[in-house]
Amino acid sequence: MAIEKLSEVKCFGGWQQRFQHQSDCLSCTMTFSVYLPPQAEQQMVPVIYWLSGLTCTDENFSTKSGAQRYAAEHGVALVMPDTSPRGDNVPDDPDGAFDFGLGAGFYVNATQSPWKAQYQMFDYVHRELPQVVESQLPVSGRKAISGHSMGGHGALVIGLTHPQDYKAISAFAPVCNPTQCPWGKKAFSNYLGDDRATWKAYDASERLDAFEGDMPILVDQGTADNFLKEQLGTPALEAANQRGLAEIRYQEGYDHSYYFIASFIGEHITFLAKALKG
Amino acid sequence: MAIEKLSEVKCFGGWQQRFQHQSDCLSCTMTFSVYLPPQAEQQMVPVIYWLSGLTCTDENFSTKSGAQRYAAEHGVALVMPDTSPRGDNVPDDPDGAFDFGLGAGFYVNATQSPWKAQYQMFDYVHRELPQVVESQLPVSGRKAISGHSMGGHGALVIGLTHPQDYKAISAFAPVCNPTQCPWGKKAFSNYLGDDRATWKAYDASERLDAFEGDMPILVDQGTADNFLKEQLGTPALEAANQRGLAEIRYQEGYDHSYYFIASFIGEHITFLAKALKG
Repeated sequence: MAIEKLSEVKCFGGWQQRFQHQSDCLSCTMTFSVYLPPQAEQQMVPVIYWLSGLTCTDENFSTKSGAQRYAAEHGVALVMPDTSPRGDNVPDDPDGAFDFGLGAGFYVNATQSPWKAQYQMFDYVHRELPQVVESQLPVSGRKAISGHSMGGHGALVIGLTHPQDYKAISAFAPVCNPTQCPWGKKAFSNYLGDDRATWKAYDASERLDAFEGDMPILVDQGTADNFLKEQLGTPALEAANQRGLAEIRYQEGYDHSYYFIASFIGEHITFLAKALKG
Repeated sequence: MAIEKLSEVKCFGGWQQRFQHQSDCLSCTMTFSVYLPPQAEQQMVPVIYWLSGLTCTDENFSTKSGAQRYAAEHGVALVMPDTSPRGDNVPDDPDGAFDFGLGAGFYVNATQSPWKAQYQMFDYVHRELPQVVESQLPVSGRKAISGHSMGGHGALVIGLTHPQDYKAISAFAPVCNPTQCPWGKKAFSNYLGDDRATWKAYDASERLDAFEGDMPILVDQGTADNFLKEQLGTPALEAANQRGLAEIRYQEGYDHSYYFIASFIGEHITFLAKALKG
């Protein structure tokens, strides 16, 4: 479980770091970013896992969100994985499309060839990466999970599937109902095959509808988001939220970009940190 | 003086915008970014001009600094120009080097061919761009100026040359003494020619040494900055600061990156906004 530190720069009194390691469950070399707040020099700190959206790597959130300021204030670490297995030997969309294959793992465990050999992002994020992080870095086992778009879908699905492992979930403009939208149908039919019964386990609205436990959940959705109508399916998540477990907010005039994330990441980190420390 | 709005997204309650216009003094089409804080919907707001460093465009600061949060808090606009004239007809370094030509205008008015026809970035930033901005956007004539690296040099030189036009200056890791460092010698010998007497007007340390007025100035320099020894010449600025006008701070362990800028941009905007509102 060796990891190699690729870079480290000081940021808000803590350290922004990049690591590389050989992933067993993805059978490739993976890069991930970490932000360790200043408090990590004195004690083990809890962790927020951040899952990015289509086309992203581990670096989009670290460079554009401004999240480090709030992580430093609250004494929480950030761990930012890549969005798919990577490397010349990893199969990709035959047309190189942005919404499937490399950069678009959709946080599922693929069951279909040729994807199943490496596209096991659910297990990577839920199991392998925390093992790596917790064994090598000054972080505790207390975890929350958040993400954007495809990564918001990932955060909701992983968190609601394993509620015992996460103290809270948040999402920005998540793909709420992938079994019903073009991005999700394309990805799930390839990764999971034609039996749509198997898709439901990876649909946040289905998960929330069936969920009987307790979990702090915060979702922000911009009203000027170009993907809102066709891809995101926020109304399905609202319909599944009968118990009112999730706070689903519409933010007037905000789009799908990192300017939206930057505007509200402070509130999300405050929300997640409260649960992590509770 | 028409400008075309290329894009606009909501950010921290205000608007992150990009504009294009035909620049008279650079004889090319220029793109610049603007952040208008929410207060600009009710009143004219003061402006901080941000000058970026080598290789940057108008977008590096807007995507990576996290400055909008603080601009919104203080009710100041941000204006972010490009770092050189642009376009297929603009002469560039013959080897395409990153430290001269496109992306490296060094905020001087070139006097040598072929550069002098378009490399007039000092006049563009000091005169033309404020005219454009003030005639088209809800901003007042109250200005401060800040920047990073080559842009920190630009902010100090422009601000100290025209102190009546700026309420305050700040800089991150500025090129403090370009007449004495490799980047500056290369740029100045090309843009300004071999008569080094003409270079002094564009050297922040020379400017500060000769400056007799009053001006709030804040400079931050990371101690882990790879360019500190060879290029930045911070000791020359300290030596020129006999009257203690500038607060020159060394930030332990920080490098030259936007993670450094993000960590301290809040303090700089607070500092500049205080002078703008004073």
